[in-house]
Amino acid sequence: MLEKLSQIELFKGIEDLDTTFSKIHYQVRSYESEAVIAYAGDACEYLYVLLSGRVRGEVANFTGKNVVVDDINAPNTFAEAFLFATENKILVNILATTEAKILLVPKSEFLRLLHIESAILQNYLNATANRFVTVSQKLRFLTLKSVKQKLVHYLLGLQQKHEPAHFFDLGKTHAALAALFGITRPALTKNLLELRREGVIEIKNKKVRILNESKLLGYLEAL
Amino acid sequence: MLEKLSQIELFKGIEDLDTTFSKIHYQVRSYESEAVIAYAGDACEYLYVLLSGRVRGEVANFTGKNVVVDDINAPNTFAEAFLFATENKILVNILATTEAKILLVPKSEFLRLLHIESAILQNYLNATANRFVTVSQKLRFLTLKSVKQKLVHYLLGLQQKHEPAHFFDLGKTHAALAALFGITRPALTKNLLELRREGVIEIKNKKVRILNESKLLGYLEAL
Repeated sequence: MLEKLSQIELFKGIEDLDTTFSKIHYQVRSYESEAVIAYAGDACEYLYVLLSGRVRGEVANFTGKNVVVDDINAPNTFAEAFLFATENKILVNILATTEAKILLVPKSEFLRLLHIESAILQNYLNATANRFVTVSQKLRFLTLKSVKQKLVHYLLGLQQKHEPAHFFDLGKTHAALAALFGITRPALTKNLLELRREGVIEIKNKKVRILNESKLLGYLEAL
Repeated sequence: MLEKLSQIELFKGIEDLDTTFSKIHYQVRSYESEAVIAYAGDACEYLYVLLSGRVRGEVANFTGKNVVVDDINAPNTFAEAFLFATENKILVNILATTEAKILLVPKSEFLRLLHIESAILQNYLNATANRFVTVSQKLRFLTLKSVKQKLVHYLLGLQQKHEPAHFFDLGKTHAALAALFGITRPALTKNLLELRREGVIEIKNKKVRILNESKLLGYLEAL
């Protein structure tokens, strides 16, 4: 039953999951299709691992109609973001879309699991840190005021994926980038050329190289 | 030297920090005032613990002027958000504002520390989860389109701090709330009364009670 767990990011790198799980307490519950797994407002006290089937998160909208906000296929974990938060309430109703089998690890037992298996601890820390970075970057993007700030944010994001001071591709056409920033293509080009004139980037054969990362970062903090 | 660590959230609940730290490798470095501790773009490979003095994060803005974006006083940790992220680059230059003493725990040794001391692991998981929740809530707030959605988000935030289905105070005057949402006071009152008419909240003696949390959540997902 546990062999599917090795496909989940959280459990990758563990040689013998059966032995590992034999050291902790957990439950496996079966749900009929359309059964409620948890209600919005419930405290999140378990790591939920969907072993088989499909579950969804949904809320009633203001007309009373249920709206699906999340859709999870086995094998996967869910609702784990709030597990260790002080305000650990689940935000949506969680229902089984098909028959589903769920492994529930109580929070205290999950802590023991993190202690027993360093690989799971590292996977969990890596996943939560990445999620934090992603959300922080989105937040930063939404608070950016000018087109130039959005462009700078985008360039810095690309730079992270490449060697410092090397040329990289913009990853999208100028037209697609302009659409992303909600401006016209000429306005995008104008902003790119301004950054070049200010000496912070170099443009060659449609590729870009960052010459002054510190000054680029400065645009983001300028407001 | 380590006695100050017990004042830091991350290390609370540890009885004998000297014994704990004797089990791992770490360095203590002293910095002169205005010395550079790390450059923007450096990989974050250490847990930084500021033992004494003051440090700041700064970036050069587009005119070349340095702008302070963060200011940290001892005792405290800093730059720990990226420690376990896949893209673990420090985003700003970090400088000593005064003479400073910094304890540096390499990432691998911090992992060992989390393994040795369950209290530190729980503190760290709690702090990172709370930070994630805070940033997620901010992100959600920024993506809310209507005044009613902002109001609903605010009410749900208050509800989390109180017993379900109990009356709670709005926490701010109507005038202050209206300012927060960027609307007039009458417009705020109109939205509150609409929510009452729709049967999702009850208002009594300037206090509010949520009657239908699921329907309230529905407003957030409606767009």
